[in-house]
Amino acid sequence: MKARMEDGKVSDIRAVWFDNGKCVMIDQRELPAAIKIVSFGTHTEVAEAIRNMTTRGAPCIGASAAYGMCLAALNKVDIDKAAADIKAARPTAYDLFYAVDWMLAKLKAGEDPVKAADSYADSIVDKCKAIGRYGNELIRDGMTLMTHCNAGALATVDVGTALAPMRAAHDSGKKIFVYASETRPRLQGMQLTAWELNQEGIDHAIIPDGASAYYMSKGVDMIIVGADRIAANGDFANKIGTFDKAIVAKRFGIPFYVAAPVSTFDFNTRTGSDIVIEQRAETEVTEISGIRIAPVGSKALNPAFDVTPAELVTGFITEKGVFAPSEIGSMKE
Amino acid sequence: MKARMEDGKVSDIRAVWFDNGKCVMIDQRELPAAIKIVSFGTHTEVAEAIRNMTTRGAPCIGASAAYGMCLAALNKVDIDKAAADIKAARPTAYDLFYAVDWMLAKLKAGEDPVKAADSYADSIVDKCKAIGRYGNELIRDGMTLMTHCNAGALATVDVGTALAPMRAAHDSGKKIFVYASETRPRLQGMQLTAWELNQEGIDHAIIPDGASAYYMSKGVDMIIVGADRIAANGDFANKIGTFDKAIVAKRFGIPFYVAAPVSTFDFNTRTGSDIVIEQRAETEVTEISGIRIAPVGSKALNPAFDVTPAELVTGFITEKGVFAPSEIGSMKE
Repeated sequence: MKARMEDGKVSDIRAVWFDNGKCVMIDQRELPAAIKIVSFGTHTEVAEAIRNMTTRGAPCIGASAAYGMCLAALNKVDIDKAAADIKAARPTAYDLFYAVDWMLAKLKAGEDPVKAADSYADSIVDKCKAIGRYGNELIRDGMTLMTHCNAGALATVDVGTALAPMRAAHDSGKKIFVYASETRPRLQGMQLTAWELNQEGIDHAIIPDGASAYYMSKGVDMIIVGADRIAANGDFANKIGTFDKAIVAKRFGIPFYVAAPVSTFDFNTRTGSDIVIEQRAETEVTEISGIRIAPVGSKALNPAFDVTPAELVTGFITEKGVFAPSEIGSMKE
Repeated sequence: MKARMEDGKVSDIRAVWFDNGKCVMIDQRELPAAIKIVSFGTHTEVAEAIRNMTTRGAPCIGASAAYGMCLAALNKVDIDKAAADIKAARPTAYDLFYAVDWMLAKLKAGEDPVKAADSYADSIVDKCKAIGRYGNELIRDGMTLMTHCNAGALATVDVGTALAPMRAAHDSGKKIFVYASETRPRLQGMQLTAWELNQEGIDHAIIPDGASAYYMSKGVDMIIVGADRIAANGDFANKIGTFDKAIVAKRFGIPFYVAAPVSTFDFNTRTGSDIVIEQRAETEVTEISGIRIAPVGSKALNPAFDVTPAELVTGFITEKGVFAPSEIGSMKE
């Protein structure tokens, strides 16, 4: 992704990579105020970075987990123990489990840890590029799009899932406009998606989450979101607020697409009701920069994700093409 | 409303009142951190307090406007000029225009300014109590409710519109639970509604606006919101995010009520498409306490209200009873 660094130069960087024996990543909690680069030498530090959301987004969590497993192998840590440590970091994103198991198999087959993890990260980026190509076929010049949270390069090592078709459309000369809903409580839409769109020069506006129906009623051509886990029937977990948008989009007849690599599909989870939803600390809602903004004595609830039923999805944009919910089964073949 | 003051004592205060030649009000921008009382001696100061949201909520804006007209009369200002000044403060809430015209008529008929304005404010509180009684008839013991923004005592001088039935249900011994959606960008749900529910001892939780579908899917028995202006056909303007909630409630078959005095009905506005929506400064979205949290170069959009179509409304809870959208015409008689 393009990023204007502190020296003023625009660099093409990834959200996470491996350099000089360490897992290096952008501290996404510091964006957009600063592009802070952090590095970790142990798998437990990487697991903590996943847990505290230094890195986030399902595919990027997967790549970070792969580098965590790589560090465990390099550090001669028991890799089954390391796998358990890393899997315990967050419960919802399927890519975390997928990546750890993928690395376990590679390491047990004697593959080089760094090469294996790099190839996992590279394969995500390749998949995102393919998602961009397939998604771009759906976007016409002049379209107004909407997205939620951040399913961009920051969430996927590079390029993005939901943002990949927008990048591809923009790069191919199509004029598009994107509504980025801010995504309370952590504001990934405002602070990460708008930041990425800004770096790319894609015309956009940040809106409060509650302004979705207002703007959809005035004209949105397409909604594209990411996913943290997609069940076998097409129900999918994504950032809290996605379900609301899908219901509103249905009312207005707006096509609603989910962009995700096949690795986000959990074919062992039958329906969305089997997906575990992470409940995060209420202070993410009630505090800003450590200062309480809610009344003392009032509690807050903070589910990180919701589950949108397959019937509200127009299609899944994957690296293998665009699939209707009813066609998910054919994806495995 | 009950409010624990700085000396620790619980006082029964209003959101706005007249005392010693001045219009006195709670500075609602300071809640919940502090109960700051401010007072104004001129109608232009009151107009500014409406504009900058020291006071807010359609009925409370109406009462404040009435006290502003009262001050203009006491200060021997041209009352037609004062009426225009006050009406220019904010565009959407119908009560503002209703109250100013009501006061103009009273003042021109030679009524005492303070008595007239006090009677306007008293009549709002009486109407809210009636709304509470009618609304309470709809609430059963053990119900889970949801509201948005603040249509409480702070929005209506005292008692509230949407919160009036909840207060009445609680006072009559019914056990209820209320989801208060935080209401970005100004967080009136978190900072005002939760504060009021807390003062009253009504069990509640703050949720991000985007968690509405998540919690409605798990079980909400009734939604009650306020309104800033209701068109003759039942379309109504209320805080941005209301439209999203109404669409989601419809999907889940959850009764969706609008609580408002008859003075919020604008029988001269035929449908919602004729309601002017105030667009507020983007810094309400992109800044917190004056510090920019959005990427430099990204713009934000900040419509203060949306318009929910009448077909999504189960009923209007007014001081004259509960009316279906199709029954609005009978309200005038």
